[in-house]
Amino acid sequence: MTTMIDRLAIIGVGLIGGSLARALREAGAVGSVVGIGRSRANLEDALSLGICDEITQDVLEGVQGAGMVFISVPVCSIPAVVAEIAPALAPGCIVTDGGSVKTAIVRECEALMPAGCHFVGGHPIAGTEHSGAASSFATLYRGKRCILTPTEHTDPAALETVDRIWRLTGAEVCSMEPGHHDRIFAEISHLPHVVAYALVHAVGTADVEGENVLSYTAGGFRDFTRIASSDPAMWRDIALMNRGALLASIDGFSASLDELRRRIDSGDQAGLTEFFTTAKQFRDGIV
Amino acid sequence: MTTMIDRLAIIGVGLIGGSLARALREAGAVGSVVGIGRSRANLEDALSLGICDEITQDVLEGVQGAGMVFISVPVCSIPAVVAEIAPALAPGCIVTDGGSVKTAIVRECEALMPAGCHFVGGHPIAGTEHSGAASSFATLYRGKRCILTPTEHTDPAALETVDRIWRLTGAEVCSMEPGHHDRIFAEISHLPHVVAYALVHAVGTADVEGENVLSYTAGGFRDFTRIASSDPAMWRDIALMNRGALLASIDGFSASLDELRRRIDSGDQAGLTEFFTTAKQFRDGIV
Repeated sequence: MTTMIDRLAIIGVGLIGGSLARALREAGAVGSVVGIGRSRANLEDALSLGICDEITQDVLEGVQGAGMVFISVPVCSIPAVVAEIAPALAPGCIVTDGGSVKTAIVRECEALMPAGCHFVGGHPIAGTEHSGAASSFATLYRGKRCILTPTEHTDPAALETVDRIWRLTGAEVCSMEPGHHDRIFAEISHLPHVVAYALVHAVGTADVEGENVLSYTAGGFRDFTRIASSDPAMWRDIALMNRGALLASIDGFSASLDELRRRIDSGDQAGLTEFFTTAKQFRDGIV
Repeated sequence: MTTMIDRLAIIGVGLIGGSLARALREAGAVGSVVGIGRSRANLEDALSLGICDEITQDVLEGVQGAGMVFISVPVCSIPAVVAEIAPALAPGCIVTDGGSVKTAIVRECEALMPAGCHFVGGHPIAGTEHSGAASSFATLYRGKRCILTPTEHTDPAALETVDRIWRLTGAEVCSMEPGHHDRIFAEISHLPHVVAYALVHAVGTADVEGENVLSYTAGGFRDFTRIASSDPAMWRDIALMNRGALLASIDGFSASLDELRRRIDSGDQAGLTEFFTTAKQFRDGIV
């Protein structure tokens, strides 16, 4: 195929950015890839692994002449990165991202785009427990979802290009309004993390006659709480950036827990069976 | 070694009861094993697999002449089973169980023991996702904890015998007061199950513009919610039998979640970092 993007700039060449670059190189969709980041060691990994043709720690130098810029940095930093690179973008450049919160990012980044440049919000639903360029691989996105979040301001041709790029990685691409995305991910991702952190916090600080109850935990507890081992700074940022939807999800969960508590307290056997059975059916339905 | 128990009766020859019988046979600690249960097919599995020497669906017939009776049936049924077998127990018989709730079971079963027979509460902390005699294996308890819950009424020699039996399976045995056991397991096991069921219930019933948000879930959500796939009847019984301790654990968790919600709502960056970091340290400390 002819290359779709002559020069692709990846800001943040980790698992997500590195895997996108690898997949697009394998598909022959990119001319050259420039890797941009703060860690020299990670960039040198990316260069030696053939993920990038060039590397730089200077973001303004890196984006020059790029037809597409993909940003994969912590969600709170994405608008600041876009503000920084905006003056250096080539005419027609498409800027897109991989952030897991969309409303705030899309609103701010659209407003920062110079005339003739286009922002398209994105969120590939893929990952592993590893990070860094060395953990990236070309097939990460195969069969996974990638959600794009266009608005009424989005350039249709830019959206089409970003859509095609992600399809080339093997992802199933769909589009939705940024607020819809954020309400869904508040429920299925941000809420579970908050609940897991709160659970481990509660159990870890529980006073049962002064004994450390965590020493009695077995495999089930470890599996259930694995997501409470995630990076605190990342989840602080996600919680704050998706605050409105997340608070609504927390309130919905609290209402469910209160209802369950009421049925336990009142000894409502039939009500408990019904509640647990409904939940089990939801859970078994997703596997 | 000389056999410790001439005749061992196992009421409920599933993963737990079957594995105990296998381990004690391998250790040469039992003369004969009689398997008692309601499912003829499961009992015949237990017989053909060599877990038991005899099988019967008649519990009164089965316990006759037994030096020890091990009960592994749903927690709510344990006192009723003990009430049924009490008149048929041989003098000196030791009755013990594997239930995951102890206060109510120990109180009721102690009161049901005929003079000269002894009840000792127990809870082996082991299991797999499988059930039935065919899923049992002799090494299930090796390196796992088994908690015994004696009271001031417990016969010291009976406690010593049950302790030795479990050590022969390879378990690490410890003893604690039944209420202490129940407060610990409310925190580390019963609360996580209740939270997982409430979470799946909340997400499954969430209305995000009419869309089924569960269709967007990935591996993380599936792992986090696996315990919400557990048997609803079993968890209804556990929740009700350990109601007091569980309600206190739910309230402790709700307080943690409310505090976390407050920090998100107020945009308290430092407070969120501190909360998530503390929880992560608790979690990482148990692995």
